[in-house]
Amino acid sequence: MSANPRRAVCPGSFDPITLGHLDVVRRAAALYDEVVVAVLHNPAKQGVFTPEERRDLVLDTCSGVDGVRAEVFANRLLVDVARDLDAGVILKGLRSGNDYAYELPMAMMNRHLSGVETVFLPAAPEFEHVSSSLVKEVVRYGGDVSGLVSDRVRDALTERLRPQ
Amino acid sequence: MSANPRRAVCPGSFDPITLGHLDVVRRAAALYDEVVVAVLHNPAKQGVFTPEERRDLVLDTCSGVDGVRAEVFANRLLVDVARDLDAGVILKGLRSGNDYAYELPMAMMNRHLSGVETVFLPAAPEFEHVSSSLVKEVVRYGGDVSGLVSDRVRDALTERLRPQ
Amino acid sequence: MSANPRRAVCPGSFDPITLGHLDVVRRAAALYDEVVVAVLHNPAKQGVFTPEERRDLVLDTCSGVDGVRAEVFANRLLVDVARDLDAGVILKGLRSGNDYAYELPMAMMNRHLSGVETVFLPAAPEFEHVSSSLVKEVVRYGGDVSGLVSDRVRDALTERLRPQ
Amino acid sequence: MSANPRRAVCPGSFDPITLGHLDVVRRAAALYDEVVVAVLHNPAKQGVFTPEERRDLVLDTCSGVDGVRAEVFANRLLVDVARDLDAGVILKGLRSGNDYAYELPMAMMNRHLSGVETVFLPAAPEFEHVSSSLVKEVVRYGGDVSGLVSDRVRDALTERLRPQ
Amino acid sequence: MSANPRRAVCPGSFDPITLGHLDVVRRAAALYDEVVVAVLHNPAKQGVFTPEERRDLVLDTCSGVDGVRAEVFANRLLVDVARDLDAGVILKGLRSGNDYAYELPMAMMNRHLSGVETVFLPAAPEFEHVSSSLVKEVVRYGGDVSGLVSDRVRDALTERLRPQ
Amino acid sequence: MSANPRRAVCPGSFDPITLGHLDVVRRAAALYDEVVVAVLHNPAKQGVFTPEERRDLVLDTCSGVDGVRAEVFANRLLVDVARDLDAGVILKGLRSGNDYAYELPMAMMNRHLSGVETVFLPAAPEFEHVSSSLVKEVVRYGGDVSGLVSDRVRDALTERLRPQ
Repeated sequence: MSANPRRAVCPGSFDPITLGHLDVVRRAAALYDEVVVAVLHNPAKQGVFTPEERRDLVLDTCSGVDGVRAEVFANRLLVDVARDLDAGVILKGLRSGNDYAYELPMAMMNRHLSGVETVFLPAAPEFEHVSSSLVKEVVRYGGDVSGLVSDRVRDALTERLRPQ
Repeated sequence: MSANPRRAVCPGSFDPITLGHLDVVRRAAALYDEVVVAVLHNPAKQGVFTPEERRDLVLDTCSGVDGVRAEVFANRLLVDVARDLDAGVILKGLRSGNDYAYELPMAMMNRHLSGVETVFLPAAPEFEHVSSSLVKEVVRYGGDVSGLVSDRVRDALTERLRPQ
Repeated sequence: MSANPRRAVCPGSFDPITLGHLDVVRRAAALYDEVVVAVLHNPAKQGVFTPEERRDLVLDTCSGVDGVRAEVFANRLLVDVARDLDAGVILKGLRSGNDYAYELPMAMMNRHLSGVETVFLPAAPEFEHVSSSLVKEVVRYGGDVSGLVSDRVRDALTERLRPQ
Repeated sequence: MSANPRRAVCPGSFDPITLGHLDVVRRAAALYDEVVVAVLHNPAKQGVFTPEERRDLVLDTCSGVDGVRAEVFANRLLVDVARDLDAGVILKGLRSGNDYAYELPMAMMNRHLSGVETVFLPAAPEFEHVSSSLVKEVVRYGGDVSGLVSDRVRDALTERLRPQ
Repeated sequence: MSANPRRAVCPGSFDPITLGHLDVVRRAAALYDEVVVAVLHNPAKQGVFTPEERRDLVLDTCSGVDGVRAEVFANRLLVDVARDLDAGVILKGLRSGNDYAYELPMAMMNRHLSGVETVFLPAAPEFEHVSSSLVKEVVRYGGDVSGLVSDRVRDALTERLRPQ
Repeated sequence: MSANPRRAVCPGSFDPITLGHLDVVRRAAALYDEVVVAVLHNPAKQGVFTPEERRDLVLDTCSGVDGVRAEVFANRLLVDVARDLDAGVILKGLRSGNDYAYELPMAMMNRHLSGVETVFLPAAPEFEHVSSSLVKEVVRYGGDVSGLVSDRVRDALTERLRPQ
């Protein structure tokens, strides 16, 4: 495989990015020369934020980490995204063994399709319970998600989801 | 935390209550002074029964157990429900390790949000395969769910779901 | 139970059949006199292929295996399907421990309903990551699924799902 | 593979056989023409009972089930045992997803070594917690294992393990 | 069951107690009137500390938590310990889904033997990786376990295990 | 952390190295500038091969892979090994979700002790069932492990373990 093994792609829907995602990106940035956060967009599924909003929130949340950029990809296979980015490795954070069981078939499929490797980085314990979907559910019902997402993401979520 | 540790809340959608739920409620009632079955209702998701019907079926099924009451909560965070009820503990039945992996982030999130603890009680083996969704599927296709739900719940399910 | 223990039913939605399914069917055919692939159809869920198309793709994919037939069942409990077919055993392929956790309640429910046994056959390692849903996702985004499904299934998927 | 697919081998150390084992053997006997309980003996590991005692307790416990026999094998690969017995299938009871994760590499290894298939039968819920090792621990500390093993096994365990 | 449901027993070998154990005991103490830490001792297995040393380290580590006491039990079934203590519930901390799979058969066995219930409390995320055995291994190889056990336990471990 | 993120350490006991290990090392070598296979030796546990024999078999098995070296470490914490090697990352192959559950506490502990990260690479499906311990068991009972270990390892195992 000739893609650049020092450039990692971190894929996800990031609707929106959490501090758990930031922790993985920050640690990945210490392990690779460059980390590309790939906001994968499936137009058939509507999110809380548009793909461009999600990318902007990723960039804002990760602004203190060197070597990170973010891009939106719509309707694309992850292996094609990795090839376009010349990224030699896919990096995923893992929260639990169940996460691994969910991610494994996709990692094997991606390796089957293009030979690209997926490596897994365990989530920091303090973020194990933090997912975009759980954070959204908390906000929808009026809970405070400070400390789970950046302040800007918290405010954007509140504006979008909070019952009037 | 100053909430009453002798009052437990058992949350769920209970659409409808099964004999597996009853078993957990009965055992919880032996461990706590009072058990409140909280029928959580998300208006965005339509169930087979209305929240009030579900609560009535809970009360009917649990009528032989002392110290149990049931209430409906719509669009509420579980931690707010627990606070309103002055319940010092959330009690959940667990059927499998996968159940635990699913419940754990919510338990950790609830502890993060308000400090309330979640304790888990293992399901009785004879009810490990009994879930509201599987019971509904069986009834939809004409199967007999006697022994998995109360007779009254079975009849209500049949009337609502059985093909003519 | 008097059903024929030498006739196994392999149930599923088979939308469409993969080479992982074929591997399970072929190995099952060596263990039983007859294997009936039961294409279970829930009219409330629309698939990529009609039930009859799925059955035809099953038959085409399994054409080289002796002792295999395929039938469509709509809105039927699996235990009733097994009884109608006089099949003494339900056989399921398993890809992972998580698959088992998902299948176990249904196996226990079926045993509760009619006494019919479910036996599990581990997937061959090279097909562990191959599922109908992942294959469809790859095709939707323009990937090549040769080697994961038969050529005829690949062509049918491409025609149905590939973006123009 | 030319071995007889109507003869199943149920391997284990059976030190001693439990009523959970008996349940699996009885259900296997309804699915196959013949079931051979293979008491595998590793002379490097000392058990509570000798291999011959274990075989006798298997035979005694399973005496009411037709089509079952038991044999001792020392220092033998299971695939060689299956070949010697002309058994076309290895049958194992499974208690949990963790059991499956433990058994899967051995099943794959055995298939790699000789092509013999392993099929898994889920344990009856009421015996999910019953293992030879847990039963022995209970007896060692003075507990009553009636209902978990046959009366004769219970008495043999008590005589062998109970503190004076 | 007539045992006191407001008295919980926390069983374990506690060789030695970690800050993860302390966290569970402290949270249990907020949920029950009294928590008894039961240091279970199997004379056949030699630990790093004697049972009495372990109990003393438990008491020292938990000295700031009201309503906690510790006792040593040798060669006793946990259900007999619970009965002797008149404890109506067994409380166990859980680190992962695998922990649950390991604990479940024992919880079911204990319920079978005496009807006593086991409830599970999820470990705090920051202590999920902390076990007595891993801590001992770290000390044996010269690592610093401050922050994982109390200072007194750390010093006792270092004295006992550290290579000269 | 200032250690070299382009140098990975692959730790293990490698008693002996399998073709599954080789697959992980080969894929790691494509992702990093240098891979150091660290043969960790605990003198309290006797292996089939001496640490030096294990290292030589590692080197022989990996001789076709560029950028790989092997070293023996006795009685050392992995974090100290990584520091001595100036390796910025620990890389482990994973066979299953259970492997992950087993490895996770150690990865978290290592990060706690020194900040070093552990990344996980999924095993190739065809080697998922291959472990040193299972391979040794097969050889002990007279089975053929060609295709699971290198020919030289197979011969060395046979000479050491095969019954006369």
